[in-house]
Amino acid sequence: MSQISKMEVHPDLAMERAKCNFNKLEVTHILDGGEENTLQRKKIEDIALNDGAARDAIPEEHMSPKEKYENAVRKSCVYSEIVRNILAELTGLETFGLNSPMLRRVSDAFFKEVSPFLLHLGMFVPTIMGQCTPEQQAYWLPRALDMQIIGTYAQTELGHGTFIRGLETTATYDPETETFVLNTPTLTAYKWWAGGLGNTVNYCIVIAQLYTKGVCHGTHPFIVQLRDEDTHMPLPGIKIGEIGPKMGFNTADNGFLGFDNYRIPRENMMMKNAQVLKDGTYVKVARHGKMTYQTMVFVRVMLVNEAAFNLAKACTIAVRYSAVRRQSQPKPGAGEPQIMDYLTQQHKLFICIATAHALQFSSNWLWRSFSAVLAEMKHGNTDTLPEFHALSSCLKAVSTSDAAYFIEQCRHACGGHGYMLSSGLPNLYNFVSATRTYEGDYTVLLLQTARFLIKAYEQAEAGKPVTPTVSYLTEAFSGNKSIWCSSPEGIVRSFQAVAAGKIGVCVRNIRSRMRTGLSQEDAWELSTIQLVAASEAHCRAVISDTYSQEIERLTANSSPNVKGVMEQLTRVYLYYWALERTGELLMYTSISETDILDLQLQYEDLLRAIRPNAVGLVDAFDLRDELLHSTLGAYDGRVYERLMAEAMRSPMNAEPVNQAFHKYMKPLLKGKL
Amino acid sequence: MSQISKMEVHPDLAMERAKCNFNKLEVTHILDGGEENTLQRKKIEDIALNDGAARDAIPEEHMSPKEKYENAVRKSCVYSEIVRNILAELTGLETFGLNSPMLRRVSDAFFKEVSPFLLHLGMFVPTIMGQCTPEQQAYWLPRALDMQIIGTYAQTELGHGTFIRGLETTATYDPETETFVLNTPTLTAYKWWAGGLGNTVNYCIVIAQLYTKGVCHGTHPFIVQLRDEDTHMPLPGIKIGEIGPKMGFNTADNGFLGFDNYRIPRENMMMKNAQVLKDGTYVKVARHGKMTYQTMVFVRVMLVNEAAFNLAKACTIAVRYSAVRRQSQPKPGAGEPQIMDYLTQQHKLFICIATAHALQFSSNWLWRSFSAVLAEMKHGNTDTLPEFHALSSCLKAVSTSDAAYFIEQCRHACGGHGYMLSSGLPNLYNFVSATRTYEGDYTVLLLQTARFLIKAYEQAEAGKPVTPTVSYLTEAFSGNKSIWCSSPEGIVRSFQAVAAGKIGVCVRNIRSRMRTGLSQEDAWELSTIQLVAASEAHCRAVISDTYSQEIERLTANSSPNVKGVMEQLTRVYLYYWALERTGELLMYTSISETDILDLQLQYEDLLRAIRPNAVGLVDAFDLRDELLHSTLGAYDGRVYERLMAEAMRSPMNAEPVNQAFHKYMKPLLKGKL
Repeated sequence: MSQISKMEVHPDLAMERAKCNFNKLEVTHILDGGEENTLQRKKIEDIALNDGAARDAIPEEHMSPKEKYENAVRKSCVYSEIVRNILAELTGLETFGLNSPMLRRVSDAFFKEVSPFLLHLGMFVPTIMGQCTPEQQAYWLPRALDMQIIGTYAQTELGHGTFIRGLETTATYDPETETFVLNTPTLTAYKWWAGGLGNTVNYCIVIAQLYTKGVCHGTHPFIVQLRDEDTHMPLPGIKIGEIGPKMGFNTADNGFLGFDNYRIPRENMMMKNAQVLKDGTYVKVARHGKMTYQTMVFVRVMLVNEAAFNLAKACTIAVRYSAVRRQSQPKPGAGEPQIMDYLTQQHKLFICIATAHALQFSSNWLWRSFSAVLAEMKHGNTDTLPEFHALSSCLKAVSTSDAAYFIEQCRHACGGHGYMLSSGLPNLYNFVSATRTYEGDYTVLLLQTARFLIKAYEQAEAGKPVTPTVSYLTEAFSGNKSIWCSSPEGIVRSFQAVAAGKIGVCVRNIRSRMRTGLSQEDAWELSTIQLVAASEAHCRAVISDTYSQEIERLTANSSPNVKGVMEQLTRVYLYYWALERTGELLMYTSISETDILDLQLQYEDLLRAIRPNAVGLVDAFDLRDELLHSTLGAYDGRVYERLMAEAMRSPMNAEPVNQAFHKYMKPLLKGKL
Repeated sequence: MSQISKMEVHPDLAMERAKCNFNKLEVTHILDGGEENTLQRKKIEDIALNDGAARDAIPEEHMSPKEKYENAVRKSCVYSEIVRNILAELTGLETFGLNSPMLRRVSDAFFKEVSPFLLHLGMFVPTIMGQCTPEQQAYWLPRALDMQIIGTYAQTELGHGTFIRGLETTATYDPETETFVLNTPTLTAYKWWAGGLGNTVNYCIVIAQLYTKGVCHGTHPFIVQLRDEDTHMPLPGIKIGEIGPKMGFNTADNGFLGFDNYRIPRENMMMKNAQVLKDGTYVKVARHGKMTYQTMVFVRVMLVNEAAFNLAKACTIAVRYSAVRRQSQPKPGAGEPQIMDYLTQQHKLFICIATAHALQFSSNWLWRSFSAVLAEMKHGNTDTLPEFHALSSCLKAVSTSDAAYFIEQCRHACGGHGYMLSSGLPNLYNFVSATRTYEGDYTVLLLQTARFLIKAYEQAEAGKPVTPTVSYLTEAFSGNKSIWCSSPEGIVRSFQAVAAGKIGVCVRNIRSRMRTGLSQEDAWELSTIQLVAASEAHCRAVISDTYSQEIERLTANSSPNVKGVMEQLTRVYLYYWALERTGELLMYTSISETDILDLQLQYEDLLRAIRPNAVGLVDAFDLRDELLHSTLGAYDGRVYERLMAEAMRSPMNAEPVNQAFHKYMKPLLKGKL
């Protein structure tokens, strides 16, 4: 491949780049959050990637899962050293949990799936920061940050995911020895899923039901040593292993963990929010319930960011491929057009670029809001937590679901070659598809948001003030059908009217069901399909609003053509979703059938207008080839050369005749001569 | 696992089975097409599966791709012997291409992905039957059927898929030696994708541009020997290999193939439809253009059948798991309900069961129609070919797309555990997702159907008769908006009105674009997004109509409860798609907003009515555990025991400390002590 990487850019891609009418670097700066960030990102990428340490001699796809894992451990160690170098060179780098988006981004060059060390910096360290007392932090943090120990976070059990109160693992305090005794009372109580748990980590944060003085105080976090620091042997009383192959994340040795009267010191309970004293007295320190959301919300914000990033990769691959791939002959005698010239292809791809932007800007906005929440929480003010929790829930659900859907659409748009692992697209789908489930399943999260929305609706109905993201509910009580208008603001207002309408239907259904004698819980349960849909509609309105407002703000000083193309993409997003939701718009706004047919034609015109800038738009994501891992998406567009070169690396091609012929086939074929 | 397979049925599943109010066996007979078929299927399954030959000592997921391939060859040989036994015992078995649905079905127990021999019986043999003269068949068929030679079918090239006329491989006739000289003139001309081509087959049907006497006569099929029959070494002039890992089908050694002045005898041209005489004269024998569709259409019919079958597997897994999995506590103090009790879960699952039925019955109906077409073609009558081609195109597109979508929905419904490969669900998705692309991509096929629909619309407009599946177009010209009614027939009529409305919009758009001076091709191209949507709407109407009519016919003599539950499922299908298409219904029928809100409530009532019979419905698919390959879906419901047992089989758990600790991690962790 090193030879390939020096090839000339494919003439079709060169032509596309010549056609681009806007300054790509300006867009890159907007996406990075300013020129300085771009420079810092590029510096990080140069340090991490220029020497080729990320590259495998044999592609991982040809290895067994065990070999893949061992190779991933090797690269995790290499990568840890590289991070050390980056931090030494770039002081002041934002490194919360050593896991800032910039560092996280570059790590994707090393790991097609994921590092087995990921949850050490992604969950173990942040949880120590969030749940330990200052004294405990002083003991654990330096050891963890310096990687003298390596940990993960084990909450989910074989039989328990979403419902944390149902966890079965127990931690029973024994004042005699001043230890907690950990136990796994049943098969379903085994910890299951934690990344790195199977073979990699020697420590682990364990969520268990705390018992002291015969009373259960609910789930609490504990720091538990699992393996000997020198020999790495599992300690007596620990049953541990890897859970087996998954759709993705196969380099992360997700593990299971059981305890058989395993004792840990009292001090290993994470005591910021609650404590057990030496004599076994339970003391609640802080508003425990609310504070434990902190790490969870942090992870959700990161997941929205990753969804956007991975969708940007998929767009880059599919758009570049669509510029190089030629197919069919719609006009007799003419040549085969680039497949991107087909309107159906533009329909598949440009919404993906727009969504990558929409999610990225929503994620940035969510990050700023979250920082504000954190600042307020330090002063003990948790008033904004419910709104933020509702927001982070639905944004995580909708972002990961949309990103997975559109990544798959990018793969479909690449036809057969998209099915090759070397396209990079199946890996992206497998990865993002997992994020749709973990840290809060799609349906469960939307129902959490729905609870907030129903309350907000009732407040608005009572004439009370509501928080900003649901202020549209107040207008909904004006009694007028929302006036349709196809301007960006008009469409956002219509989406808000749809959300308000759908929330209203849910409220009325719940009330009428309760009037028939059903309990509140039963009436709620019977309305959940519509509640999920209402939450999705709310989230779509929030993303649409945020996206268009952020584009206006961020391009205020941009050159006219950058402003133009960014506004076009915003409209692609709005028109696309309006056309996907015509039923709701007809029900809750004044839109007419003619308006819909017109909007369809406007949408098609827009696609054709964006077409010449499509390659420029994905180039502006500025994703190095090392991050894309794609034969179809490389900057030079040498698709066919790369596909063939990659095939030649297959061990299946190392010998002209596979042994299976002599062992199995020959007796069969020759058996009846 | 052998121990596990003797475990008692999980009490929750036993309870579900006790609740089932209909005779499951009756439904099984309906699905199999009669009691006799069920008995024959079970006999085949007993012969093939009772001795455990399908089972791997080490699960395939733990192997490298090369090991997986070699194991698949081993099992293909075992399976070939088993097929021989089955055919010896069950004379009269329908074995077109030795690939009848019943045999195809049982092979899934042997291959989680696919057999490297699949295209030998799936494409090589049928193409010999369809494209060779009787003399050629007499030579090739016995050798192929007896597996003295093994072949595949190579059409697609690295740079050419859909557009067959664009293929670049050449076969140039040389009258001196009476041979064809095969060449691969460019990199993009390499054959690419054919299953079994990389390492397994020794013969291959190659589609190439035929040149004789300096004239190109377009693409024709040739039988080409690739490897020595004894040594399996590639012959001189053949460049061959495996294309590398894919999302699925990894046991099928999909291959590439290039020719360098490779000569084959004149007789190896498949000469049923066209011939090259000794002196190089080209003679067209039959209506070549239409006849070459035959194999392609046959494969499409099979793909609809497989889509239904694989979706049935996914339903079985997800419904059984949802009966055993318990989660959350919606009512304080009460226990955790089975997740199937949640309405959102019923909404995810029951449409999948209904779709599996709808596709299965549509596939059977398509099969009967196809047989009729074949019979007519024998008498030289090809009048029905356009309608059937349009039907098979859109049904293949929509069936594979819907099945893939709903299999993924089943996976989502299983939460985290659905992400485990041992759930069986990711493999099903990977498999069906490929069928959405190959043998005609989704978008391309729907546009083919659209051409037929536009023509039919114009005929109806001109008052001419149209064929049965588009007879609704005639009604569309009555000028009245279709009257909404929520009966099955009413909904089908509404779907037809939607299809007619959407086709009409396309016709008007194309005409108005042509009036502005655009060519017919350009006007068509600008309308393709809406043409795809119109075809989908047409196909939805066809499936809905077929499904409800077939259920009425097939349950005419059923017991009342079987009739009842089958009708409920039909309504789930119709209500679901009506609620997904409210925008179109509001535009093209008289449905009101109140009707929509009512239909939503009726849909929810229906889900609750089906709930007690859900496990019975998936049991009625009668899928043996060997076919499901699922820890979550086994008949006994021992989900957690199986997950743990499967994890224990991971080679990652064979040793307490992985070597990667000593080799890589220890130096890192201990480096800074």
